[in-house]
Amino acid sequence: MKVLINGKQRDYRTVWMRDSVVYMIDQLMLPHKFLIYESKGYNETADAIRDMIVRGAPAIGATAAFGMAQAALQFNGSDFTEFLKYMINAKKTLSTRPTAHDLFYAVDKMLDEIKKAASVKEAKERVVKASQSYADESIERCRLIGEVGEKLIKKNSRILTHCNAGALGCVDYGTALAPMRLAHYNKKNIHVFVDETRPRCQGSRLTAWELLQEEIPHSIIVDNAAGFFMQRGEIDIVIVGADRITRNKDVINKIGTYEKAVIARENKIPFYVAAPESTFDSGIKDGGEVEIEERAHDEVLYINGVRIAPKNSCARNPAFDITPKRYVTGFITEKGILK
Amino acid sequence: MKVLINGKQRDYRTVWMRDSVVYMIDQLMLPHKFLIYESKGYNETADAIRDMIVRGAPAIGATAAFGMAQAALQFNGSDFTEFLKYMINAKKTLSTRPTAHDLFYAVDKMLDEIKKAASVKEAKERVVKASQSYADESIERCRLIGEVGEKLIKKNSRILTHCNAGALGCVDYGTALAPMRLAHYNKKNIHVFVDETRPRCQGSRLTAWELLQEEIPHSIIVDNAAGFFMQRGEIDIVIVGADRITRNKDVINKIGTYEKAVIARENKIPFYVAAPESTFDSGIKDGGEVEIEERAHDEVLYINGVRIAPKNSCARNPAFDITPKRYVTGFITEKGILK
Repeated sequence: MKVLINGKQRDYRTVWMRDSVVYMIDQLMLPHKFLIYESKGYNETADAIRDMIVRGAPAIGATAAFGMAQAALQFNGSDFTEFLKYMINAKKTLSTRPTAHDLFYAVDKMLDEIKKAASVKEAKERVVKASQSYADESIERCRLIGEVGEKLIKKNSRILTHCNAGALGCVDYGTALAPMRLAHYNKKNIHVFVDETRPRCQGSRLTAWELLQEEIPHSIIVDNAAGFFMQRGEIDIVIVGADRITRNKDVINKIGTYEKAVIARENKIPFYVAAPESTFDSGIKDGGEVEIEERAHDEVLYINGVRIAPKNSCARNPAFDITPKRYVTGFITEKGILK
Repeated sequence: MKVLINGKQRDYRTVWMRDSVVYMIDQLMLPHKFLIYESKGYNETADAIRDMIVRGAPAIGATAAFGMAQAALQFNGSDFTEFLKYMINAKKTLSTRPTAHDLFYAVDKMLDEIKKAASVKEAKERVVKASQSYADESIERCRLIGEVGEKLIKKNSRILTHCNAGALGCVDYGTALAPMRLAHYNKKNIHVFVDETRPRCQGSRLTAWELLQEEIPHSIIVDNAAGFFMQRGEIDIVIVGADRITRNKDVINKIGTYEKAVIARENKIPFYVAAPESTFDSGIKDGGEVEIEERAHDEVLYINGVRIAPKNSCARNPAFDITPKRYVTGFITEKGILK
């Protein structure tokens, strides 16, 4: 993705690995500071996922893949059975967030790679290579999602998106933002409405930041206002990402996605979900089977460290919701549109 | 309303007038500080409405009525024509917010009272008395709304509300909160889900504060999460207030109300609007005719003075939206349920 540094655009990935160090854009510091976080071991990488220094389903998938490679490199010894046991434990350590499918998909893929090896040495080489390929392929999938999705965007479209399904939520390009990026390059004169996405404000903090880097016109709105603009005919299409898509095509995504989907259908506005293969989980029948992460109540009660609620009030804080497939117009995947 | 001061419950109104001073609970200071704001003249009262020291349709109606009384008391002279001109000007000054009907209803009512007088002196007496009656009648209307609405609340109900349509938004009791208050007194074991209501967080700041004063169990949720709880069957009924209800019964209320109404209907959850006569505006055909206030973009871009969005991003900030009547199960009024 492009990042404006002192007025000049430079290319960055959200996460990458060199030697045994994993580097990531520190998403807790955005939009005010652009800093690279360095993780020297897989425990630290697991912490970075849990603390949301890196977030977004494809991004935490790639980060966890790198974490598996780090774990392998950290292993001392040559006993393969011991190594495998250690790696299964590393996989558990890295699985710090329950909802996104990509994380489990990635660590399992790395473990499969290890199992193909005849020695610890070979396994280490395999997993390092596989983690790099995982990130490269993730980028390629997002690029293709961009090409597929761009065709859905007409000239002068006003597009609503929720949360951040951008380059920052992936390794590059993004899922929901990839088609918008391309439509902008193709001079389609788009305007993006960005839901701020409480409680963590990934929309106003991250999506708006990404759009600014490439000068894509946009307006931040509170989540409450999306319906207002849909009702007025000021939104032509909604594109969001997904954390997990079940076998029957229910969509698990950032809290609030379900509300936007229902209101879009009510206003006959097409509602698309952009996601790569790694987000589709054929192992789960429908949304009812997915564990929905409930995060700390302080995410609701405090903003920027300042309490916005009375001292003794409580909160509820589900991080994701389930959008039944009947509200989804289509899925934008690297292989084409799935209706 | 009850206010806990050093552990003891004391009775307060949101706004009242003694001599020519208008007193109001400073709602910008809540929930962390309970302070009474004193306005000594009608210009200051107009500022207090505009700056939202007092807010909520019935509350700003009563405040504006007191403002008219203040204006009358401030007039020096005995020429009735001059006085009338001056009062029409005061009415304009006090009409600082365009959306709520109560404000216009109240100032017009005060002006009508003045026009009945034979002298400036009589007019002053009349408007002071009328403003006090206006506040008293507003309280009585809310009390009746409570009685009417309480019957809709079953034992163990989980109720969703949006924004603050509580005592703080009225002179006392509230509109949407009045039935909940009464259900709580009647030991119906209710639980209130409080939408935080971005951008100004009247839910987490004000509604939660009011509920705490009377120890009514509640959970604050981000606006994005209301759909999640509705979908899960964790909400039995939705009750909100209104800023204006048009002749055809479209509801103009805090931004986000429309979204909640659509999702409630989708989940077959009854959606009620609680409002007194003063909120019904027969002069306006439907929602399309109502001016929707767009407030400062900084309300979206900053929280507690800290910018949450990138420096160069823009926002849109409509303060209200329009809920078409087809989404409303019924209106809770002082005269009964209107279906």
